[in-house]
Order: sequence, then structure tokens, then C-alpha cells
Amino acid sequence: MKDDGIILLTEQFDAIKDQILANNSVDCVIFGYEENQIKVLISKWKGKELYGLPGGFVFLEEDLDKAAERVLFERTGLVDSYLAQFYTFGTSNRRSEAEIDDLKKLLGNVENGIIQWYKSRFITTGYLSFASIKNSVIYPDLLSENCKWHSVYELPNLVFDHKKIIEKALEIIRAKTHDLPVGKSLLPAKFTMGELQKLHESVLNKKLDRGNFQRKFLNMQTLTRHEKQMTGGAHKAPYLYSFVIN
Amino acid sequence: MKDDGIILLTEQFDAIKDQILANNSVDCVIFGYEENQIKVLISKWKGKELYGLPGGFVFLEEDLDKAAERVLFERTGLVDSYLAQFYTFGTSNRRSEAEIDDLKKLLGNVENGIIQWYKSRFITTGYLSFASIKNSVIYPDLLSENCKWHSVYELPNLVFDHKKIIEKALEIIRAKTHDLPVGKSLLPAKFTMGELQKLHESVLNKKLDRGNFQRKFLNMQTLTRHEKQMTGGAHKAPYLYSFVIN
Repeated sequence: MKDDGIILLTEQFDAIKDQILANNSVDCVIFGYEENQIKVLISKWKGKELYGLPGGFVFLEEDLDKAAERVLFERTGLVDSYLAQFYTFGTSNRRSEAEIDDLKKLLGNVENGIIQWYKSRFITTGYLSFASIKNSVIYPDLLSENCKWHSVYELPNLVFDHKKIIEKALEIIRAKTHDLPVGKSLLPAKFTMGELQKLHESVLNKKLDRGNFQRKFLNMQTLTRHEKQMTGGAHKAPYLYSFVIN
Repeated sequence: MKDDGIILLTEQFDAIKDQILANNSVDCVIFGYEENQIKVLISKWKGKELYGLPGGFVFLEEDLDKAAERVLFERTGLVDSYLAQFYTFGTSNRRSEAEIDDLKKLLGNVENGIIQWYKSRFITTGYLSFASIKNSVIYPDLLSENCKWHSVYELPNLVFDHKKIIEKALEIIRAKTHDLPVGKSLLPAKFTMGELQKLHESVLNKKLDRGNFQRKFLNMQTLTRHEKQMTGGAHKAPYLYSFVIN
């Protein structure tokens, strides 16, 4: 029995297919943070246990950056989140025959326009984003039954080279944790040094020394110190901080 | 009168056009170094005072990286030079109508396959390379009357967004002069601290303090010290160095 969403997707594709740039796509690695865990937004395809990054085509008249902004907005409703290109994935064998077959079955097993399009080769530019999970309103695409935040350390069965794309994005945010707005984007406006350290530990996937971490951050002069956090024992309450830059 | 090279180019294009991936290209910013100047390899189009980066299409079955390797090899004969993707340029207006018109005139002013192809939109991935000018054998493409090394500080009239592509590559090598194999690739195997400093000054386009520069490099422990350079006054001869890593 054919899925209403898939029928709609096929119709939508036929209506816009002449406005799409061939052989190019964008994929977004949208990082969020909750329960002390760095997470990534992933769509589950309908039916199968197959998962993929939010992504999509580029319109003929659309800048590549704008295509990524559109994908981020369509999936999360967010417009002001940090979003930047990080790498372009261009091997000729990004997708296996078996995966194309799965996609074809999912799309109704007919040789229509959309399956022809999916069967073509894509060079995809990866964008990384830091998104507020709290402020995002997740909206799955028509190919997917849901779209959820997954811990980057417990990834489901990803299609194509999407695992490699996530790993590359992680590699970059690990190398540039202090240059990218990781803390500024993923923590509340005011946070304790302990909360900042937990975020960094989750990104780097390792424990950090409390004293060194604090010294390093204070030396960089990127933080402003505010009042103490109002908790139980007043003399033990930690200071709150916010980012001056980044 | 039509140019033999252009006729050949048109014929070659018609023979391979079904094997080319649409809407994608690579452009190579190939840096060289001579006469204490950081230079970049640039092609001059036939006839007009128009200059462009070495670049080209991607074959249907060719990895994006391999396309860049092929372009580097075709223009310079080099196979082992440092070559890495640095950014993908995807605005929809990368090329002006006037530039397409110039290209059309250059190609014989007929609406043939190659001009149709050039008129389509390209998302281009920029690759940066460090090449030995001495070891390269420059071979212009059929569209160009020559291909030469130009100081990055005296660039000719570049087509499309090629100036922006060079500026982005420069920005990246300036930010990562110590992480990329700039010195290792562009200096002879053994060099003096003064020669290394001159290279860095040319990349950064500013004078550096001799003492600070030397201290910084020695602290990084990336250099091995060898014998003194054999010149005139023995006690003034500088030491020679080579790179341990990078």
C-alpha cells in the first residue's frame, strides 16, 4: 500500500524537477546538546531501519549556502543558528546499489522521475550547524517517518556516506572547539564552568582536568563572570558565566 | 580565423560530453615560490586579457579528488605535490553574462555542445596545492594561450569568482602556515632560517621579527639542524635546516 507522503513527494518532485540543479546536494550535520550529550539530528526513512542526515537538492537559482539554510529551516524551524560549510564529499561511489534499491522500494518501485533523480550521482557539500534543541520544532521530510536527536556516540544504521560525513564534522568541531561557537550555541546564555566543561567533554569524548580547563578558558578571556548560581549552600555556589565573543 | 586548438577542444568535448558530470567542476589554486615571492599558476585565455585558474570538469565515474589531481597533472606534470580541498564555491551568480559572451566568442561564436556546457551553472570545489616551480612542466589547456606563475600580489584580470577563490586559499594558508606543508613543499630540502622567514613573510605579506620567528620555529621542534651553509665568511655562515615533520 502506497504511503500518502510518498505520493505527495513524487508529485512535488515532478512539479519542481526542472528547477533543480543536477548532481549536487547539501547535507546538514545539525548538532544539539541535551542531558550532557552532544547529539545530531537524523531522519529515519519510512519502513526500513535506515537513517540519513537532513539534506536535499539545490535549486537552479539558489546559492549553495541558501540551500543548506533552507534544509536547516525545513527540518528545525531555526533561522539564526550557526551554519557553515565544512567539506564536500565527492567520491563517485558514495551510494551502493543496495541502498538505491531500498530507496526505489520506498518510493513505490516504479521508474518515475524521482527515482531517476535519486539514482544519479551527487556531489554533496556538508554543512555543520549548532542548534538549540529546545527552540527547534522538528519536521520530518516526506521520505521519513521521523527525525530525531541521536547521541553522536550511539548512531543508528546510516545510509550512503553519512557516517563519514558526521565523523568529519565531529573531527572539525573537535579541532576547533575554541574557534567555533560551540558553547555559545549549545549552552544557555548563562552557565557554570562545570556545565561548559561537560559540553567540551561530550564533544571531545574524554574527561578533562577541572583546573586546567578553567585556567585555559579564563586565560582566553572569552567569558564574562556574573553572579553566583542560586542553589543550596551559598558558599559552595558556582559562578555563572557568559560568552563575550564567539 | 578559427584557432586549431579551439577546433580540437570542440571535437574533444563532443567525444567525451556523455562522460562528464553536469554542474560540477574543480579549480586548483597551485602555489609556487620563486624570487622570494609566493606565486600562483594562472592561464591566459586566447585573445582577450582574461585570466583563469587551472580547472575542469569531473568525469561521471571520477572522484572529485581525482579530478583535481588530473587538473594538477595536466597543467604541471606533477603527481606528488600537496593537494587538498579547501572550499566549495556555490553562489548561483559565479559568472557574468559578459564573461559567458567572451567565452562564446573565444569558442567560435556558435551554439555548439561546449558553449552550452560552459553556459550551465557550476558548483566548483577549490583545491589548493603547493608545487615546485622548478620541477613543474607547464602545459596550457586548449582554451589558453599560456599558463604562468604570477605573484599573488600582482594578479591579472581574473574571470568569474577566481579572485575570490585565490583570496580564500590565501586566507587559509595564512591561518594554517604552520599546519600545512608550506615550507616543506616550497623550499629546497635544506634551507636557512632566513630563507624560511622570507617565505613566511611572502605568504603573510608582512615583515616578521627575526628573533621571534626563529624562536617560534625552534620551539615547535619541526626542524632538524644540519651543517652550516658554505658561503664566504665561515663564522657568519648560517645553519641549514630541514623539516622533520610536515
